[in-house]
Amino acid sequence: MFITLEGPEGSGKTSQIPRLADALRAAGYKVLTTREPGGTLIGDQIRKVLFDLGNKAMQPRSEILLFQASRAQLVDEVIRPALAAGEVVLCDRYADSTMAYQGHGHGVDLAQLAELVRFATGGLKPDLTLFLDIKPKDGLRRRDADGNWNRLDDYDAEFHERVYGGYQKLIAAESQRWEVVDATRTPDEVAADLARKTLARLQSKERLV
Amino acid sequence: MFITLEGPEGSGKTSQIPRLADALRAAGYKVLTTREPGGTLIGDQIRKVLFDLGNKAMQPRSEILLFQASRAQLVDEVIRPALAAGEVVLCDRYADSTMAYQGHGHGVDLAQLAELVRFATGGLKPDLTLFLDIKPKDGLRRRDADGNWNRLDDYDAEFHERVYGGYQKLIAAESQRWEVVDATRTPDEVAADLARKTLARLQSKERLV
Repeated sequence: MFITLEGPEGSGKTSQIPRLADALRAAGYKVLTTREPGGTLIGDQIRKVLFDLGNKAMQPRSEILLFQASRAQLVDEVIRPALAAGEVVLCDRYADSTMAYQGHGHGVDLAQLAELVRFATGGLKPDLTLFLDIKPKDGLRRRDADGNWNRLDDYDAEFHERVYGGYQKLIAAESQRWEVVDATRTPDEVAADLARKTLARLQSKERLV
Repeated sequence: MFITLEGPEGSGKTSQIPRLADALRAAGYKVLTTREPGGTLIGDQIRKVLFDLGNKAMQPRSEILLFQASRAQLVDEVIRPALAAGEVVLCDRYADSTMAYQGHGHGVDLAQLAELVRFATGGLKPDLTLFLDIKPKDGLRRRDADGNWNRLDDYDAEFHERVYGGYQKLIAAESQRWEVVDATRTPDEVAADLARKTLARLQSKERLV
């Protein structure tokens, strides 16, 4: 089962993923966690290019293509082999981030993006996507407090609002694939909710098999 | 006028470009030279990822997307502004390299590649493409002697033969855009031929304007 986590900057995905992995392992699943961009030796080099605050001249089409390059590498080198070995894969961001950030955020044609994503992923889609729900301004405030500011956080507040609105549209269009989790609560409460919802999906999938 | 140089590894493009630029400048043209992948601060970071001999795990789709990312950055940051300022742009490799290497070399679907290239370039095509013609095995022998071996040179001989065959098809399909130059001669002879053919095209274009 291929599970992705999505949400605005500062929604807590990165700190929740190891906790969710532990909860699934405690329930007997073999779990691989990874992230985008990055997750491979080559992808981490691409991640560095994308997030470097010195790369202010980055053009939107170049940014989109770098994300897809990292994704293609991750899908073929890591995700497909793990799924083939029967593991649960938890991925911090995936194709929905492209649609939300580059599509709804930057205004790039959505059909064109969907085509690029299809090429990069070879058509691999998540079985479940967990949305960590927090308003962009609250998420960015957390991020700023953490001191983990990067080039993408630097886009203006309207950009982050468009991204958030984009996620709402993606969720509405494919509601059966998504679980929305209120990320404004304490980390323990969020972790418990993520584990509960994910285990319910895994178990209902097994009943179907 | 947007001019690209293409050819197998070791065909001498990189050492010929400054000589061609000098010849055009001597004839009164303002000339900008650049190269792919690279040509920008961001593109040079991408180039490093592509050519690093440590990145053996590179997946074909990831490689394709990295080339397109570097290209999108170069087109928007460098080539379009230079063309708009009336300069002659000489670029060491461009979209034809994608069709020859990734399409004919790796066997990636040509229509899909053409779509990716259209996205990366925003539709910008060269006015003239100079093909430095040398058999792949002769080019690679030169490259090896230079000590400039990189990850892409490492592909097997059949790959480089397919690339060469791909170039022949690209030239046949759009013969009016290409000039083929015999690159097995001395560097001075090749330089003189490149300058003569390029100046003839520039002057015939001016007569049309």
